[in-house]
Amino acid sequence: MELLRLLLGHPGVELTAVTSRQEAGRPLAAVFPRFSKAPGSDLEFMMPDPDAIAATGAEVAFLALPHGVAAEIARALLERGLKVIDLSADFRLNDPAVYEEYYGHAHPAPDLLGEAVYGLPEVRAEEIKRARLIASPGCYPTSILLPLLPLLRNDLIEPATIIANSMSGVTGAGRKASLPLLFCECNESARAYGVPKHRHLSEIEQELTIAAGEDVVVSFIPHLIPVNTGIATTTTATLRDGVSPEAVGAALDEAYGGADFVRLLGRGGCADTKNVTRTNFVDVGWEHDARTNRVLLMSAEDNIGKGAGGQAVQSFNLMFGYSTTEGLHNF
Amino acid sequence: MELLRLLLGHPGVELTAVTSRQEAGRPLAAVFPRFSKAPGSDLEFMMPDPDAIAATGAEVAFLALPHGVAAEIARALLERGLKVIDLSADFRLNDPAVYEEYYGHAHPAPDLLGEAVYGLPEVRAEEIKRARLIASPGCYPTSILLPLLPLLRNDLIEPATIIANSMSGVTGAGRKASLPLLFCECNESARAYGVPKHRHLSEIEQELTIAAGEDVVVSFIPHLIPVNTGIATTTTATLRDGVSPEAVGAALDEAYGGADFVRLLGRGGCADTKNVTRTNFVDVGWEHDARTNRVLLMSAEDNIGKGAGGQAVQSFNLMFGYSTTEGLHNF
Amino acid sequence: MELLRLLLGHPGVELTAVTSRQEAGRPLAAVFPRFSKAPGSDLEFMMPDPDAIAATGAEVAFLALPHGVAAEIARALLERGLKVIDLSADFRLNDPAVYEEYYGHAHPAPDLLGEAVYGLPEVRAEEIKRARLIASPGCYPTSILLPLLPLLRNDLIEPATIIANSMSGVTGAGRKASLPLLFCECNESARAYGVPKHRHLSEIEQELTIAAGEDVVVSFIPHLIPVNTGIATTTTATLRDGVSPEAVGAALDEAYGGADFVRLLGRGGCADTKNVTRTNFVDVGWEHDARTNRVLLMSAEDNIGKGAGGQAVQSFNLMFGYSTTEGLHNF
Amino acid sequence: MELLRLLLGHPGVELTAVTSRQEAGRPLAAVFPRFSKAPGSDLEFMMPDPDAIAATGAEVAFLALPHGVAAEIARALLERGLKVIDLSADFRLNDPAVYEEYYGHAHPAPDLLGEAVYGLPEVRAEEIKRARLIASPGCYPTSILLPLLPLLRNDLIEPATIIANSMSGVTGAGRKASLPLLFCECNESARAYGVPKHRHLSEIEQELTIAAGEDVVVSFIPHLIPVNTGIATTTTATLRDGVSPEAVGAALDEAYGGADFVRLLGRGGCADTKNVTRTNFVDVGWEHDARTNRVLLMSAEDNIGKGAGGQAVQSFNLMFGYSTTEGLHNF
Repeated sequence: MELLRLLLGHPGVELTAVTSRQEAGRPLAAVFPRFSKAPGSDLEFMMPDPDAIAATGAEVAFLALPHGVAAEIARALLERGLKVIDLSADFRLNDPAVYEEYYGHAHPAPDLLGEAVYGLPEVRAEEIKRARLIASPGCYPTSILLPLLPLLRNDLIEPATIIANSMSGVTGAGRKASLPLLFCECNESARAYGVPKHRHLSEIEQELTIAAGEDVVVSFIPHLIPVNTGIATTTTATLRDGVSPEAVGAALDEAYGGADFVRLLGRGGCADTKNVTRTNFVDVGWEHDARTNRVLLMSAEDNIGKGAGGQAVQSFNLMFGYSTTEGLHNF
Repeated sequence: MELLRLLLGHPGVELTAVTSRQEAGRPLAAVFPRFSKAPGSDLEFMMPDPDAIAATGAEVAFLALPHGVAAEIARALLERGLKVIDLSADFRLNDPAVYEEYYGHAHPAPDLLGEAVYGLPEVRAEEIKRARLIASPGCYPTSILLPLLPLLRNDLIEPATIIANSMSGVTGAGRKASLPLLFCECNESARAYGVPKHRHLSEIEQELTIAAGEDVVVSFIPHLIPVNTGIATTTTATLRDGVSPEAVGAALDEAYGGADFVRLLGRGGCADTKNVTRTNFVDVGWEHDARTNRVLLMSAEDNIGKGAGGQAVQSFNLMFGYSTTEGLHNF
Repeated sequence: MELLRLLLGHPGVELTAVTSRQEAGRPLAAVFPRFSKAPGSDLEFMMPDPDAIAATGAEVAFLALPHGVAAEIARALLERGLKVIDLSADFRLNDPAVYEEYYGHAHPAPDLLGEAVYGLPEVRAEEIKRARLIASPGCYPTSILLPLLPLLRNDLIEPATIIANSMSGVTGAGRKASLPLLFCECNESARAYGVPKHRHLSEIEQELTIAAGEDVVVSFIPHLIPVNTGIATTTTATLRDGVSPEAVGAALDEAYGGADFVRLLGRGGCADTKNVTRTNFVDVGWEHDARTNRVLLMSAEDNIGKGAGGQAVQSFNLMFGYSTTEGLHNF
Repeated sequence: MELLRLLLGHPGVELTAVTSRQEAGRPLAAVFPRFSKAPGSDLEFMMPDPDAIAATGAEVAFLALPHGVAAEIARALLERGLKVIDLSADFRLNDPAVYEEYYGHAHPAPDLLGEAVYGLPEVRAEEIKRARLIASPGCYPTSILLPLLPLLRNDLIEPATIIANSMSGVTGAGRKASLPLLFCECNESARAYGVPKHRHLSEIEQELTIAAGEDVVVSFIPHLIPVNTGIATTTTATLRDGVSPEAVGAALDEAYGGADFVRLLGRGGCADTKNVTRTNFVDVGWEHDARTNRVLLMSAEDNIGKGAGGQAVQSFNLMFGYSTTEGLHNF
């Protein structure tokens, strides 16, 4: 829904098709009353038939499907000449064995992994521009990777000491009729879940390992809190011997000083989700604890914005030659 | 307010005096409409004069005052023969130098520190029974200490690896007119705060050090989330070499199998604040991450219940010979 | 769940049986972790077999079942000598034709309607004491009826001008996996629903008609708001010619001055749900608008407390000779 | 803040000055971290000096000031050649005596009332285009007036029977450090307030009276609910004799079929605030209760969008020749 919201408002986008088995035949505005009167919102959902989609003249498809299902339709659309930006996990992992370990079934399209680009625009803008198939990163990984990658690239922290604690809004679980997602189950509630081996660990460690140039294994503990949207992540890691705390700020500045969608809050900046909801920004602050020599990284993003739909549109902008902020400069 | 709620409903308690400079002369039920029609709620607030308080025949005083202020009135009441259960930080630290480091002023009554008992009933029941002056623990420390203490006593974890991430409801900040506590500032918001050296670190490390028999320095990162009450804490620590994960469960069982107010959720149990709000329980679950050899401790309590008012009443029950659960068996 | 919470804590209650087809065999504490360690919470859910229930020695059964289903089991339990307190709508209406009009099917046990007592203890205490079968009122009706009944009995208002607007927490919809009840659908949302003929109108108008001694037809508009519990109702009606506003306050005082669970806030008192959640109180304030000669009645209750479980226990206390406030004096 | 958000994103707007005594010297992005990196957000707050404001080259000023204060600065800015869009109540009432009755002090600029236009664009587009001074309507009035005006203009309802019940988010109270606006006071709370004579009644009745061509006196009951933004209003009124329910739908269709920012939900449509937050839309549904012959009007808007900042920008678009939806087509 958030992706649709962004695409409906993007000056360079014409929606030619939206698919849904369940809602086929109903216009967008009927399924999502919020979009009523938005230009393009009278478009009707159609069945997800690759030929029919291609026949609409679509040049690119955004896939918001369960893992396992996304790969099949991605292949079909690629074969019909569309580019594909996949928001599922199907193309995020380079190694099909890791995919099988974390997702519980053989990878449905291992031959496509080679060309898929892990679509973190702050890290791989050039590859994204040339890509035919984007694996858009997950919400937790985005909030964890962006602050950590520059520190690992610059050898500032001990990789084995990384621990990420995240708090996520309930939209992160998707929109499905399920008891634990009821208002009265989530409201006035806070809890960890998915420990000790959440699926997002696989892509987090893959990207950290690339940045560090050595195997990185981390702890990641997600928590559910009663907000609609937003992820706040606090990551701790021990500074390597001899590294000054200021090097942390310098590495972040160097990496993101010119980034359109990373806002650096500096030392002591405690990122707050309420400043990033409905935007494509990641706010990043940090602190150093002299008593333990740990660095604290505090990041906040909209889990369905920069953590999903916004990031996908950011890759789209790169792939199709738009300004990075086109359609994404919301505050 | 939560403490008053518990005292009004406690069969062994007669409220003889409530004090407030601001509300002096107004009955309890006028200040807190929720208490209207509660037996005892027509009691009027009086000025906090020690002689007047003693003259009401009170045998024990609960102090919910700012640090620095509490010590003075505590001394005056002790001199008049009352026992004192202090919910402030004034008597929690054994070392006045640590107090000064964390609270920014010299300790107002260092001579009383020797007899003050850190009132964690699961740890010091016998001392509490005999005490004249209780320093009732803070909300964060309670949720962090209870799961950790048995692990440290049994040498199961590396003390230097302890990191506690807590999420707290907004009642934790008290009831004062302040912009950051407004509904619209807290709702749909999540953020860390008070890093890297929250005041509660001082009592946390004091008690962990006692349990470990060696100096313990930890990281503690509090977060504010949009719930009225509840703290959920996730603590990680590395198991010592050769310690089996099962030893964690066994140590918790041994420590709290018979505890009235600790509910062990076992391995994989993700404690949820919604199950403990308005109760005196701490729910504790744990998990082991074989990939990093870290143990995860997940605890939940009501920050104004077991984390404040409830715990104070629990000490009261011990001091005055009531059943531990008297007035606290709420669900 | 709220009813169970109250019964587990009631000094005069021993739970002998809890029934659920879905949870049969699981203990209470496993289904509702909040109740863990509550005395009695190891009781296992059993299938709803009348003979088996009777065999546990139960003297009274509380029914929290869908309308239509409740009547059958009520009859079976009555035949086996149990008293029945039914929280469904099955026995609330005196006229089976009205039941059929509002609930869409023939009444399942019209022969029992004669002896069923509409269990509003503030109105029918004596009948409740003698009753074998209680129809415990719905949540909306309780908040609407209590302020209105004395005004109608005293002929103070024009019955045809009564309009009630209520706002209810999400627990009012029950605990079922349904898209509109998801956190993200209810949070940051407010809306009317169920207009123009909500089922509760039937019992509201029945009771108003009895009090007025003439046919009363009203407008009732329920709204859903993002709180777990609580109903706030604002009812307006035109004063009859020559009636002074003070007569409204006098009628409320006369009716409820001695009521244990009605708290009169007086003129200008805007009842707030946060003061009644988890209690059995209804708070009632009123105002007069001289410009329109309308009286405004503002009431607040806990929809699952006084609006459901608490009210049922209040009837139980009357039926079994307990003090009215036994097990219900929560604040 | 919402107005600033809209102006920062409006393609036709260049912010030349923002004023605040308290924040003078600080850039927008420092006061509102959400706006960080927004083009224009490095503009610094300045003192509210009319000459200094005029010297920035500003052509129009938006005033978000307390009533009484706004009129003075409005006059000063008008004298310096700026147009003024005032979001306060100072210019909403045609009659200074009514102003004094409702706001408790003499009108500060009665000579300007003659030219001020009550800026409801759906009703007075042509006058707004030519105006120098706009009195932008309040949040409650907008949600109440829009559905009612066509019904009164077409003589469909009895004016004396109009009763409006509104529920508002907490932003409606402004951003000030005040106990009743604290998170823990508003969360899990719902209540009426400001009865029986809320200030907004004055402008509501003025506009209804104009539409009806006769004096209209109504009841209006505002309620506070725990959402950040959004107003849902349910208005009831009795149909005049002989008017068919369908005439209600027809009148709404005729009035708003071509309106950019009114979305008609039709008969049975229960407007939900979650579909209009952060937009400039008012959603309007209606129902007829055959039992009482009352029509129910259900409207929803964002109280700080269409109910304040968005509506002001809508008038701005009219005054300066932009497309009505410029800068406001958010979903």
